[in-house]
Amino acid sequence: MRVEDLDTPALVVDLDRLEANLERMAQYARAHGLRLRPHTKTHKAPWIGQRQLDLGAVGLTVAKSTEAEVMLAAGPKDLLVAYPVVGAPKLERLRPIAEQLDLTIALDSLEAAEAISRAGLRVRVLVEMDVGLGRVGVRPEDVESLVRAVEALPGITWGGLAFYPGHIKQGGEAGRKAIAALSELVGGTVESLRRAGLEPRVVSGGSTPTWNHSHEIAGMNEMRPGTYVFNDRNSVQCGSCAPEDCAAHMLVTVVSTAREGTIIIDAGSKTFSSDRYEDECGVSFGAIAGAPGAHFYKMNEEHGFVDTTACERKFRVGEKLLVLMNHVCVAMNLAERVHGYRGGRVEKEWAVVARGKLQ
Amino acid sequence: MRVEDLDTPALVVDLDRLEANLERMAQYARAHGLRLRPHTKTHKAPWIGQRQLDLGAVGLTVAKSTEAEVMLAAGPKDLLVAYPVVGAPKLERLRPIAEQLDLTIALDSLEAAEAISRAGLRVRVLVEMDVGLGRVGVRPEDVESLVRAVEALPGITWGGLAFYPGHIKQGGEAGRKAIAALSELVGGTVESLRRAGLEPRVVSGGSTPTWNHSHEIAGMNEMRPGTYVFNDRNSVQCGSCAPEDCAAHMLVTVVSTAREGTIIIDAGSKTFSSDRYEDECGVSFGAIAGAPGAHFYKMNEEHGFVDTTACERKFRVGEKLLVLMNHVCVAMNLAERVHGYRGGRVEKEWAVVARGKLQ
Repeated sequence: MRVEDLDTPALVVDLDRLEANLERMAQYARAHGLRLRPHTKTHKAPWIGQRQLDLGAVGLTVAKSTEAEVMLAAGPKDLLVAYPVVGAPKLERLRPIAEQLDLTIALDSLEAAEAISRAGLRVRVLVEMDVGLGRVGVRPEDVESLVRAVEALPGITWGGLAFYPGHIKQGGEAGRKAIAALSELVGGTVESLRRAGLEPRVVSGGSTPTWNHSHEIAGMNEMRPGTYVFNDRNSVQCGSCAPEDCAAHMLVTVVSTAREGTIIIDAGSKTFSSDRYEDECGVSFGAIAGAPGAHFYKMNEEHGFVDTTACERKFRVGEKLLVLMNHVCVAMNLAERVHGYRGGRVEKEWAVVARGKLQ
Repeated sequence: MRVEDLDTPALVVDLDRLEANLERMAQYARAHGLRLRPHTKTHKAPWIGQRQLDLGAVGLTVAKSTEAEVMLAAGPKDLLVAYPVVGAPKLERLRPIAEQLDLTIALDSLEAAEAISRAGLRVRVLVEMDVGLGRVGVRPEDVESLVRAVEALPGITWGGLAFYPGHIKQGGEAGRKAIAALSELVGGTVESLRRAGLEPRVVSGGSTPTWNHSHEIAGMNEMRPGTYVFNDRNSVQCGSCAPEDCAAHMLVTVVSTAREGTIIIDAGSKTFSSDRYEDECGVSFGAIAGAPGAHFYKMNEEHGFVDTTACERKFRVGEKLLVLMNHVCVAMNLAERVHGYRGGRVEKEWAVVARGKLQ
């Protein structure tokens, strides 16, 4: 079957681009002696996790206990839950997993560490440090005391540090300065821990936007990119990939042309989520491939509103279009199946097994 | 089990409020002699569809062919696909459904109607009219010609009109004027069709925000509210319900308090979708129950950022909170299961069977 014959909306992936993205990252990590531990939140599919491991990843990353359960099918020897695991049901889900592989949990509070210790879970703990995003993570100056408190807990092994520089985008002088500041912060924290006799075995950082600067961050020895497998419109905007590295698109159908200058496509927030993208043209919800003048300016659940007044050609009801998603991870979470193609022909179909895993 | 003992994030529904919402709408429709055909996109659960039918609904509404398949389990005798069905695979999915019940499709193009006719599908067609939202629907002045073209197609029965006044919110003089203008538009179109010898058997309009003005719209004889079953923050804002009519909340856990003045909850865009809500306090992503000062100001996929500087009390890691969602339909689509409770006790759990139905 050809891609354009799929029923829509359909999440479609160019398998050659996917493979090239997987290999590019693996090669970068190898070249710089960095441990690669991809975050599986983007693809949510064990077969891609397995491919990442085959290409040399030391392990996989997940955000949720339920995602950890799914990713067992990829066969990792090592799994990181890069999210504070809080609550007994989540720890109980992780217990059998901790018994069959090396499980690590990143956390930023003594409460979370104590609960793990009380539950008697055999895990390694990374202390999460806030490097400026202001999300999770203790302040750099509080890292040492949390490390000491964690180390003192019965049954817990402290494994090192985790951080996520999600606030840093690439590009220009500002990007270079931000990377340099991050390096100073991480390197400084690692040095100060060492001076205090605390050796962080793992220093693990995200993210895709800054992936190719990972080797410039002093002290960092592990990277956890996620989005790189498919890339998306945000990846292109922040300079972490070229437009031709985008492997995933949404195939949609024009369902209405009743209104002059507007077309309605059969995909809205139920298909894309409502993540916004902003550039000099304003806010938009996706880029229509091959129609640079088209402005996807609004969404309802099942409707995408596209302004076509600046387009040279007309669109007709029933016509299919490819849309580059603003944020591929959230769209992947909304799809049940993905279609992989090569040279326009659908070759493979897979379930997004870890989609919808809230807990 | 008590609600607060559920693993989080968990979508929880107050069963008494749900029942009261279902009954209120059924009673309104009965009192005004309006046919009630609820849109099932909000609940996506056949058992609730069945309850709506038990309470007197003439049929159910869906947006997608795959949703129609799921809603068969509710046992409707009559089903409306309130979305232009475009493409052969969707028509083929509908064929067996059209053979076992009365199926109606709303559309706004001759192309869509011709495809149905060519496929030999036994359906009734409603012509969709744009009443100002600028989404799907032909202009009022083009209704008659599309009706005539549809009527001329072999095998198709024209059943009437559909419209969706999604642009009208309630409240104040502006709301009253908008309702009056809508009534004039719909009533005028129906009148003019009648004068032309075309009797629209069904004149079907949404939506929840204007539900209790449906009887004021001249010519309208069918209503298709969806959100009313649960209501949400948007419903309260637009005046279509009272805060105590909100039946659905998201139970979440505080997973980080590392940053002064901010808490991180374990639900972000993967749980809520990223639908925004704007009022005099700016943009926010949900309302934290019992903490009016808390400002849910930002989301990542798995993280909700809540500013607590204006809160009187402190929050602790592990604490559970209820969040009133901005838009319940998209959150429901992201959940696999829902927990229903009465008096704080979980009584019922159900699958969101029609979630993730893209096609």
